[in-house]
Amino acid sequence: MTETLFDKVAIVGLGLIGSSMARGIKKHGLSTTVIGFDGSPDVRARSRELGFCDAIAESAEEAVANARLVVLAVPVGAMEAAAQSVAPHLAEGAIVTDVGSVKAAVVRQVGPVLPDHAVFVPGHPVAGTEYSGPEAGFAELFEGRWYVLTPCERSTAAGIEAVEALWRGLGSTIEQMTPEHHDIVLAMTSHVPHLIAYNIVGTAAELETVTQSEVIKFSAGGFRDFTRIASSDPVMWRDVFLSNKDAVLEVLGRFSEDLAALQRLIRWDDGQALQDRFTRSRAIRHSIIDAGQDTADADFGRPHGHDD
Amino acid sequence: MTETLFDKVAIVGLGLIGSSMARGIKKHGLSTTVIGFDGSPDVRARSRELGFCDAIAESAEEAVANARLVVLAVPVGAMEAAAQSVAPHLAEGAIVTDVGSVKAAVVRQVGPVLPDHAVFVPGHPVAGTEYSGPEAGFAELFEGRWYVLTPCERSTAAGIEAVEALWRGLGSTIEQMTPEHHDIVLAMTSHVPHLIAYNIVGTAAELETVTQSEVIKFSAGGFRDFTRIASSDPVMWRDVFLSNKDAVLEVLGRFSEDLAALQRLIRWDDGQALQDRFTRSRAIRHSIIDAGQDTADADFGRPHGHDD
Repeated sequence: MTETLFDKVAIVGLGLIGSSMARGIKKHGLSTTVIGFDGSPDVRARSRELGFCDAIAESAEEAVANARLVVLAVPVGAMEAAAQSVAPHLAEGAIVTDVGSVKAAVVRQVGPVLPDHAVFVPGHPVAGTEYSGPEAGFAELFEGRWYVLTPCERSTAAGIEAVEALWRGLGSTIEQMTPEHHDIVLAMTSHVPHLIAYNIVGTAAELETVTQSEVIKFSAGGFRDFTRIASSDPVMWRDVFLSNKDAVLEVLGRFSEDLAALQRLIRWDDGQALQDRFTRSRAIRHSIIDAGQDTADADFGRPHGHDD
Repeated sequence: MTETLFDKVAIVGLGLIGSSMARGIKKHGLSTTVIGFDGSPDVRARSRELGFCDAIAESAEEAVANARLVVLAVPVGAMEAAAQSVAPHLAEGAIVTDVGSVKAAVVRQVGPVLPDHAVFVPGHPVAGTEYSGPEAGFAELFEGRWYVLTPCERSTAAGIEAVEALWRGLGSTIEQMTPEHHDIVLAMTSHVPHLIAYNIVGTAAELETVTQSEVIKFSAGGFRDFTRIASSDPVMWRDVFLSNKDAVLEVLGRFSEDLAALQRLIRWDDGQALQDRFTRSRAIRHSIIDAGQDTADADFGRPHGHDD
């Protein structure tokens, strides 16, 4: 049995991540009370219906009153406004954390907005699905996944310890790095992959020689693997690209250079060089499976045919 | 119960596709006998051990003797040599088909090599996994997937009918198009996605600021979705890019133009245009799920955490 870490946790933003945290905190008994809040009246109503929090507050003020821990679980572009809305109402010494996919921009925007007595411990759970909204959340989302803690000037040892305990309780493994290093690592492992996926789906949609119906029918040849991540929340991803512009453009520049080189190998029929490159990338796939970050089932265990 | 279509089918090449066909033909009783052959003595030995064929021949000659249907299931670059090895030994009026991922090049190379009495019906089952070799095959691989039939000058009505009946028996739905149109459709839905996936895995491997271990740890943020298809058979894919060069370079050119435009939107902070594009690509994902070409389970139904 996990120990109860907090009397009251407030979660601001009840999408996939916020609602999964609420469910996980309840499941593992990590807080006596979990209060949720969302800027959208519709999301508040749906969350109340779903019942994954002890209560859904009608204002940020009500949500964070007396909360030891306040989680900001909104898109990166809405983080500063969310911090402003809770700032005047934070309990003395409250710990504020966030779950944004970009860290340097969030540290720059949120830190100065919080009162001096509050502690800020920025971080990012590297987990998600292609679905969004409070219905999409589930308690196990963070289990076996990495949580990146990116302490800043406003973080205290006690605050870091409390946030780490929360994520360990949700089943994650913790890694610490600077906000800047986080942003380049995630540009490579998450942000640019999403951009590439959005891009290839766009290219397919606009190719005159191939109909939309053909793209859909024959997507099992590889294309569909890109469409999952290209169907993630558009607002969240817009904010990620704008907030992590430098790192994204840097990694994208590398990607384009490498693609030009690969294109040249094809044009010049250099089969041996192509085969060598393709062989190397197999090894990375195997490492990801060995590290427990993907399933080894063929086709990700997608069902085949009518018997499943 | 399916009807028995053939007395004897010979399958030349016992990798993922060839061995899955053998298993499917046996499962559904589509042929009285299935004889397999592979150029590699090791693959022949393993296939004999696995027992998915009635017999494994020691030569192409032995395999195709008296076979009504001969399936060439080798990489596109080996197709011409495989056709040459069976050509002198084909039964009178035998139907030859192939499963190559590129069609115009195969039609050009295989057609002229076959004797006048033989029929050639080229086609491509749009199905596969990231695994290769005879151990990777399974009877259900083609169920609910598309089979693209690309008739050529050497195809007869009776030959087309027989090949169609085979693939329907294996659970596929059939679409007919010209070899040239097939090659541009597959360049978009399969070949370029694989190239992009290989490329991003290569970029990640060579980025000095991000360690290999970080790429692997944080791959659940999106990167891992590319690594599955980037771990497919390197020889098969080398051949695909070299044999379908023109269509691949054409689609790749479009992709790069579109990516440059997306890069520009990020550089100029055009959030609205980014969000609009991302919203559009969601619709394509939903169409693919509605068409039964992917599962709607979050994360492709990948297991989450320790409880699974």
